[in-house]
Amino acid sequence: MSDANVTTYLLDRLAAARVDRIFGVPGDFTLAMLDDIDAHATVAWVGCANELGAGYAADGYARIRGLGVVCTTFGVGELSAINAIAGAYAEHVPVLHVVGSPATATQAAARATHHTLGDGDFGHFARMAAEVTQVQAVLTVENAAEEIDRVIRETLAARRPGYLLIPADVAAAPLAAPSADLAAVEAEAADAEVLADLRDAVAAALEGASSVAVLADILVQRMGAERALHDLLALGVPHAVSLWGRRVVDESVPHYAGPYVGAVSEPAARSVVEDADVLVLAGVQFTDLMSGFFSQHLPETTIDIGPRRTRIGDREFGPVPMAEALGVVADAIDDARAAGRLVLPGVAASVSATSATAAADAATAAVAPVTAGTGPAASDDPDAQLTQAALWDVVSAQLRSGDVVIADQGTAFYGMGTHRMPAGVTFIGQPLWASIGYTLPALLGAALADRSRRPIVLIGDGAAQLTVAELGTLARDRVPAVVLVVDNGGYTVERAIHGRTAAYNDIAGWDWAALAAAFDPTGFALGARATTAAEVADAFARHDARGDGLTVIQAVVPPLDVPPLLSALAEAAARANRAASQG
Amino acid sequence: MSDANVTTYLLDRLAAARVDRIFGVPGDFTLAMLDDIDAHATVAWVGCANELGAGYAADGYARIRGLGVVCTTFGVGELSAINAIAGAYAEHVPVLHVVGSPATATQAAARATHHTLGDGDFGHFARMAAEVTQVQAVLTVENAAEEIDRVIRETLAARRPGYLLIPADVAAAPLAAPSADLAAVEAEAADAEVLADLRDAVAAALEGASSVAVLADILVQRMGAERALHDLLALGVPHAVSLWGRRVVDESVPHYAGPYVGAVSEPAARSVVEDADVLVLAGVQFTDLMSGFFSQHLPETTIDIGPRRTRIGDREFGPVPMAEALGVVADAIDDARAAGRLVLPGVAASVSATSATAAADAATAAVAPVTAGTGPAASDDPDAQLTQAALWDVVSAQLRSGDVVIADQGTAFYGMGTHRMPAGVTFIGQPLWASIGYTLPALLGAALADRSRRPIVLIGDGAAQLTVAELGTLARDRVPAVVLVVDNGGYTVERAIHGRTAAYNDIAGWDWAALAAAFDPTGFALGARATTAAEVADAFARHDARGDGLTVIQAVVPPLDVPPLLSALAEAAARANRAASQG
Repeated sequence: MSDANVTTYLLDRLAAARVDRIFGVPGDFTLAMLDDIDAHATVAWVGCANELGAGYAADGYARIRGLGVVCTTFGVGELSAINAIAGAYAEHVPVLHVVGSPATATQAAARATHHTLGDGDFGHFARMAAEVTQVQAVLTVENAAEEIDRVIRETLAARRPGYLLIPADVAAAPLAAPSADLAAVEAEAADAEVLADLRDAVAAALEGASSVAVLADILVQRMGAERALHDLLALGVPHAVSLWGRRVVDESVPHYAGPYVGAVSEPAARSVVEDADVLVLAGVQFTDLMSGFFSQHLPETTIDIGPRRTRIGDREFGPVPMAEALGVVADAIDDARAAGRLVLPGVAASVSATSATAAADAATAAVAPVTAGTGPAASDDPDAQLTQAALWDVVSAQLRSGDVVIADQGTAFYGMGTHRMPAGVTFIGQPLWASIGYTLPALLGAALADRSRRPIVLIGDGAAQLTVAELGTLARDRVPAVVLVVDNGGYTVERAIHGRTAAYNDIAGWDWAALAAAFDPTGFALGARATTAAEVADAFARHDARGDGLTVIQAVVPPLDVPPLLSALAEAAARANRAASQG
Repeated sequence: MSDANVTTYLLDRLAAARVDRIFGVPGDFTLAMLDDIDAHATVAWVGCANELGAGYAADGYARIRGLGVVCTTFGVGELSAINAIAGAYAEHVPVLHVVGSPATATQAAARATHHTLGDGDFGHFARMAAEVTQVQAVLTVENAAEEIDRVIRETLAARRPGYLLIPADVAAAPLAAPSADLAAVEAEAADAEVLADLRDAVAAALEGASSVAVLADILVQRMGAERALHDLLALGVPHAVSLWGRRVVDESVPHYAGPYVGAVSEPAARSVVEDADVLVLAGVQFTDLMSGFFSQHLPETTIDIGPRRTRIGDREFGPVPMAEALGVVADAIDDARAAGRLVLPGVAASVSATSATAAADAATAAVAPVTAGTGPAASDDPDAQLTQAALWDVVSAQLRSGDVVIADQGTAFYGMGTHRMPAGVTFIGQPLWASIGYTLPALLGAALADRSRRPIVLIGDGAAQLTVAELGTLARDRVPAVVLVVDNGGYTVERAIHGRTAAYNDIAGWDWAALAAAFDPTGFALGARATTAAEVADAFARHDARGDGLTVIQAVVPPLDVPPLLSALAEAAARANRAASQG
């Protein structure tokens, strides 16, 4: 047990932010810190197989808990994790990267120290981190308390990664425990005049409108505005979500229309979004993959609610916190409905099979709608050879409220994209950064963030090769996960884009079921091979019956079978990559 | 088969530089390039499990072939490989990192594209790469030929990594094949006057000296000056090497004294280096781990031969290429010997057990000599429980001329550090960058760089967890390697520094022998568990008898058993990390 020092100060701050796990790989510049973690009352160390896995795990943890921490050693360790940090930046996830560096005296001597480039410059890696983090600090004995507070505060406020570089001697330097709570960054409050202007503008936008709809996205969750969104939708407003924002709304209500992916959307969602007189955009960021390569077609009048500002036409109102803006819109919609000006019929009534917009676009759409899939349709025979369509049907049928489902950015994410999930399921993807292999370690973090929920990861075999080693960590930490590996012999997400039968899209054929036992000789992890929908369902049933264990389901599907939504997006991606230079 | 384009131009240039393999992971921004690689007459694609593995493989390949290439996709792919690129920079290894990026038009639109941070800035990752590469270029249709040539040329000349960012449309743009050979960077030649001055200064340094010795290091190999060093040592000059420079000299000659590691050296090497009247430093870079934490104690007169400049006392001579400077020194030593002024007795005569230097330092040495080991000594009984001492003895006894041996930066590297190896063995470590896990993928690259040699990797279980997935790639590509995993339940290299029995230095217990079969159901890879020296020897024998197969030897040793050399260095490392701040 150490006396109060810089590390224990940091740990106390993290504990107060509800962090109880730190992910990482030990290195000689972090070992003293690890002693303090081991000795801490509530924060525990989770050693991972490698640093990229640890970074992804911290990201998964942060998505459930609100803050995740990865701790690595200088140079070799931090650079191995930096892809995960960049991903957290892109996806608005607050991950703190704590890096242990050579002691201050070692750095001052500027000699060729291991884990450096040998050039005496100890600043290379902090400069690299600055490109992909929101806030950075190099701790000294003098600035430690202030800088720890600043970095944690800004990481939480921005929902983006922070970077703390701690020399080995500074980590162990005496520092009294925090004497007061960490002051949160004050959300910039809206002043009364701005709010009044916003209210007027929203009312004006709704004036004369006979229909209104909401498109919601991931930033609603990141900004903690889910409650306000829920209250707005509870009025009966028809709504859709982006694929990124799956599960920020309750998908079981009738006025939920499904995911909106621009021209790739199914007709119901497309009509709700595109045919509304007024569309409320709640925390929406249109990215290439989430918009069918920017094929969204929005109504003329939109109310675009961002994290701190709301835009209506060419006017911008701010600062207005997202939750407050959603409240203003809800009030206005409720007034309009009460006054009989606005009908909120739910999605069933608002969908028209002959929607004018859909018809007009059909001839010119750059992106084919999802109904033009390439793969076999789901068979009703549960013993038929497994297909992508049947796989996602049977997986969806296994889900229940409380599950945490993480889908890797290949056939899994897009295959699940068109399935509704029960209320209370958390669905996590990484569609902007789209780093394959992310999900397996992310599941480790998400599962440790809330041990009460059933953790499920859906991942292709090509993606799972990138981060397979954390299977061992999942088993060691007794995470009772379902790890469903889609075995189709390679990168089918790439095959859909280019090189359909090219050898470079094939991978080495591993025995996934055997890997479970090799990574965990204790028998906690078991493998199951499934070639039919019935066998997938059976593997889930046996997993639940065991009660406490990890199950790797190797689900075998044809290599060229692609979920319809992915097929449509992949064609658009291929087109974008072929685009001639404008330069 | 594509018509001549930017990618085929690049491939032709690489082929001319003797590159016949490109390592990587496919991504949608590189797929068009991969078609051209597939179609190329001599360059082939090696798909790896992940990008870090691909980067390490390219490094291992470059150390044997003179140039290695890794190809990844924008953002997610390149950042996963960047630790390997930084390692190649630190260790003077010419690796070219080819990155496929979004098309020029996509970048110009500055929209939220997958594999970006979503902020419209496509320059983040190139700026990060600039911190750890020697030369960088972003290709356009206009500059492609010129920039490809410049980057390859400077990568080769500096023996350090280059970075080529190629937008998807540029990769496919027409470009005629190279019409002339790539002009090499002209080595700056020494002019006659500088050479004459150097000759005089060397002669003056040797004037009155009765003994001379050479300390050689890795840069001799990197600068292609091994032949000149060999000619110098053939005169009978006593010599030592740094641990980094193992095998730049023939270790089987009697006047080779062993590795010099400052105060941690064994007495013979220490005496040869420290007691010489004149010491020739051939390509030496003193790093913390290679110098016993800067405990080297050099004679007053040194001739310090760097890649392009030679320093004697406070005078510097240059430009003089390393090989030429070694030639000048050899001539001067030969003259002095012919004139009877210098005796070159070989190491046996020059070692004195009561060496004045050694005696003087013994009382004050900050670092204990290696004889103060902590582990059990090697037993003569081949059936005794395996120890570190016995393990490296038996492994050394298995080596034969032509082997490529790669030792990870833990007990393997330091355990082998005190063993002589047969002539014709190449020994590869990564002691400056010291990124654990490096060796397993590096072996893939080294083995594919020269299929005629027996590839052997020596790696701890903690390190092997970081990059284990490339076991599958080794088996898929039918690399007949010996993969010796030191199973001691964790990071013993860290235990030696700090946290001897701490839980954070333990790892999940994997079944390494079973992993071989799980990663390769074809039976090419087999596992063998060894708990005695006899079983290790037997596993090697059975590997050779099989003729064509990969053998994973799980060598079980006690967790707290540490090779003596590592033990001494670890104590010094712990001291450096505890050093009080000077700030």
